[in-house]
Amino acid sequence: MTLKKAPSKARTQQRFPFESLQLDATTQSPLYRQLEEQLRQAIWQGVLKADEPLPSSRNLAGLLNIARNTVIRAYEQLAVEGFIRAKPGAGHRVAEGLPDRVPRTPSARRATATDLRPQLSRRINTLRQVGGLIGPQRHNPAPLPFRAHIPDYQEFPTNIWRQLYNRRLKHSSRFWQLAVHPCGYWPLRQAVADYLVTARGMSVVPEQVVITAGVQQGFELLTKIFIDPGDGVIFEDPAYTPAATVFAMAGAKASYVGIDDEGLAVDALPAGGAKLLYTTPASHFPLGVSQSQARRKALLAWSAKTSTTILEDDYNGEYRYRGRPLTTLYSMASAGQVIYMGSFSKLLFPALRLAYMVVPESLIAPIASARWLLDRHSPPLEQAVLTDFINGGHFLRHLRRMRALYAQRQALCMNSLEHYLGDLIEVEPLDGGLHLIGELRTGIDRDAVFSAAEDANVELSPVAQFAHQADAKTQRQLIIGYAAYREAAMAGAAQNLAKSFARLSREKKTQKRTQ
Amino acid sequence: MTLKKAPSKARTQQRFPFESLQLDATTQSPLYRQLEEQLRQAIWQGVLKADEPLPSSRNLAGLLNIARNTVIRAYEQLAVEGFIRAKPGAGHRVAEGLPDRVPRTPSARRATATDLRPQLSRRINTLRQVGGLIGPQRHNPAPLPFRAHIPDYQEFPTNIWRQLYNRRLKHSSRFWQLAVHPCGYWPLRQAVADYLVTARGMSVVPEQVVITAGVQQGFELLTKIFIDPGDGVIFEDPAYTPAATVFAMAGAKASYVGIDDEGLAVDALPAGGAKLLYTTPASHFPLGVSQSQARRKALLAWSAKTSTTILEDDYNGEYRYRGRPLTTLYSMASAGQVIYMGSFSKLLFPALRLAYMVVPESLIAPIASARWLLDRHSPPLEQAVLTDFINGGHFLRHLRRMRALYAQRQALCMNSLEHYLGDLIEVEPLDGGLHLIGELRTGIDRDAVFSAAEDANVELSPVAQFAHQADAKTQRQLIIGYAAYREAAMAGAAQNLAKSFARLSREKKTQKRTQ
Repeated sequence: MTLKKAPSKARTQQRFPFESLQLDATTQSPLYRQLEEQLRQAIWQGVLKADEPLPSSRNLAGLLNIARNTVIRAYEQLAVEGFIRAKPGAGHRVAEGLPDRVPRTPSARRATATDLRPQLSRRINTLRQVGGLIGPQRHNPAPLPFRAHIPDYQEFPTNIWRQLYNRRLKHSSRFWQLAVHPCGYWPLRQAVADYLVTARGMSVVPEQVVITAGVQQGFELLTKIFIDPGDGVIFEDPAYTPAATVFAMAGAKASYVGIDDEGLAVDALPAGGAKLLYTTPASHFPLGVSQSQARRKALLAWSAKTSTTILEDDYNGEYRYRGRPLTTLYSMASAGQVIYMGSFSKLLFPALRLAYMVVPESLIAPIASARWLLDRHSPPLEQAVLTDFINGGHFLRHLRRMRALYAQRQALCMNSLEHYLGDLIEVEPLDGGLHLIGELRTGIDRDAVFSAAEDANVELSPVAQFAHQADAKTQRQLIIGYAAYREAAMAGAAQNLAKSFARLSREKKTQKRTQ
Repeated sequence: MTLKKAPSKARTQQRFPFESLQLDATTQSPLYRQLEEQLRQAIWQGVLKADEPLPSSRNLAGLLNIARNTVIRAYEQLAVEGFIRAKPGAGHRVAEGLPDRVPRTPSARRATATDLRPQLSRRINTLRQVGGLIGPQRHNPAPLPFRAHIPDYQEFPTNIWRQLYNRRLKHSSRFWQLAVHPCGYWPLRQAVADYLVTARGMSVVPEQVVITAGVQQGFELLTKIFIDPGDGVIFEDPAYTPAATVFAMAGAKASYVGIDDEGLAVDALPAGGAKLLYTTPASHFPLGVSQSQARRKALLAWSAKTSTTILEDDYNGEYRYRGRPLTTLYSMASAGQVIYMGSFSKLLFPALRLAYMVVPESLIAPIASARWLLDRHSPPLEQAVLTDFINGGHFLRHLRRMRALYAQRQALCMNSLEHYLGDLIEVEPLDGGLHLIGELRTGIDRDAVFSAAEDANVELSPVAQFAHQADAKTQRQLIIGYAAYREAAMAGAAQNLAKSFARLSREKKTQKRTQ
């Protein structure tokens, strides 16, 4: 007796057309992956129904003209995922309890995609205020004159940097693969404390040093440990806006106090104090004013009276072209009154996300917890390389070289500006920093200058972008970076800007005349 | 006529004893720095009074037996800082308008230091709940069996890593010195998208990929863009506590839904939904359960109905020892319904702070702003090296090797546990992950086991530490990591733990008997 196979139930119904599965051997995705994906989709969409039998691996391989192993791999994966079920001796079937609706196909999905934007937080509007700072660009273009806040990274000794990486990766233990303390690699904390003691005359022990991924992250950490919604924070006006935004995102109430020739207008500080006051005493951001001794003294007295903790951002503190860096507020204060912040990115290269804070030891534990929760720690390998760079003397050597170079560039920049743009912009030399502040001369139209800058591909930025309340003087002030540019580049930019300005003015006049 | 110098006014008063200044040539601090520091302090403390004349540089050099240049340098700096004033032809005098009070001396300062702890935010108490995770240690010790969540970093090919660093630092442009897009180095975003498409079957374009400094930072970024105080976020119970803490720090209202053999108990989800739901479907943290297809389907339906955005943390998604990785929730969802998170630190080495999220393109701009404000971007050099590691095929090769190794180690760990600790702990194999879940047998005292572990220097951690409400079963569950340890280390640890447990039990019995 010969057993004749009964036609399968599936075959009599509308059977899934396995033979029409399209596999493409020329794409990057392997065949088993394509097969699996198509079967999964068919099951998910309900085209292959629950309990429907699948062809044997041999049959399906024959139908599609592929290797049997390809089918076996696909079936195995679908089985593991629970889409299909292997019955011993009876081949595979679609699992039960699976989709009974037809979900959207990938192309339909795009059309009906959930728009998450209405879900966004209200506080993100605060963030959007600085959103203009984020370009959509995928690659960051090299800076052009007179973009500010950028050191001359081309002068950085990359060869030494490479040797230090090489040495750490070749000879040292695998310490850099394991987590370090959230407050930083201990030898780096020691090196930073040494630097602050010997070069800045500060009284600091390594236990007080917190390594952060840039000064910006320092603001975030301080926000986390100090600020509840509604707490007050005082900023200079103008001030480094991204600092204020970090605190605003946490619900802090910002207030602003003006700047004059001696720095922060301490007399205008609120009698009641605040949780924190953020200041840039060495070289005000962005105006470059150094806080006078009298002001510092008054500020510290006010801080003590009102129990306001001071955040001293030693912005450009290392870049003084007369004498050595100024004494820090931290050094004049009583312990715990001032939190000090410094950075390596303006000293070495902009993308180096390593900075530090000096805090009372009692804050180390909460800051460590906050950092651990934020992103654990900065990369140990990069921290070790920076440690070697400092301890090998490269750091101070580079700093000395750069100080001389930037002092010279400031003078060259002044020359170019006076020579080509003297009729438009007035510039005074500054004692330090990486940029000059220019002021548009009376009668010169601000918009016309910015149009000309755009036309000439010259980067100028207005001080007003950092102002809470920009008065008429602030409206006329420009930030003119010089540190990253050679003489020819600066002279060329100044000349081009002057030409563009003249041409645009002529065109405007002609336009008026012809109207 | 000979002019006889009149005795200076200062000399007739109680004159400052310049001759008694103590300079020490044997310390690290240069002499001019020491001199300047002591004079500054004398002025600051009011010992040197306003308008008091200073000796000429020649005289002071003679008095102290130091080079005249040393004095000149110190005077110059003090003049720049405004502490003293040079009168043309009349030497230097202490500036006016300076301290009229005597500030505390450094040693007194320490005693009267401001204690900042009362100033801390209320929300820091939330942070303190995970504070126990931060050891005070300066160096991180190598992990011991059975510490979990750590891959075997010793298997990582550091030689290749070094060559890639070398190549980038030697041959490439200086791109790594300049800022990259906050969402990541574009070629890395492409490499991650490629990996997700080919190895995980996900439909992802590079524009959707966000590089973060670890999954942990991803939580922070999502918190910033989604959460206002009071917004609801749903977590699994138990769940990865540090994720919940990030959201709690931002004022989110957490709720918890239990886990069973099929994963998240979808039936218990609130009908009203929430802003976000955080889940680990591939391998539940820490229980290792894979979410069933039926559950996933139900979860997505609930999410669509309630407009709750799902955060899919593909925790241990790559470590499946049967078949390939499971299909992701992301792949089953409609676009914008699921935000997908993956990490490199559990695949390569723990200190590698690079992870990624896949988000709808509409979220890229707000996330870029949030990241820019948080810490700008991850180090471009490290991102470039990881890109080369992936594109050179090293990543997938390493992953394949590790998958085989860990599958073997899970079996070896099971053996050791059964052989030495079978009477105490019951363990079931898991389909994936880097750890096993052990359950204490009935009658075995939990505290006794932990005491024995401490005694034997064996690391065991309780599942309960991650539980919101730990039931009796959870109280008996242990997390037993095996991935980072060789067979001998695991067998030794299990044996030592068994011995310690036996010894401590004997001692306890003896104690009871003698009481």
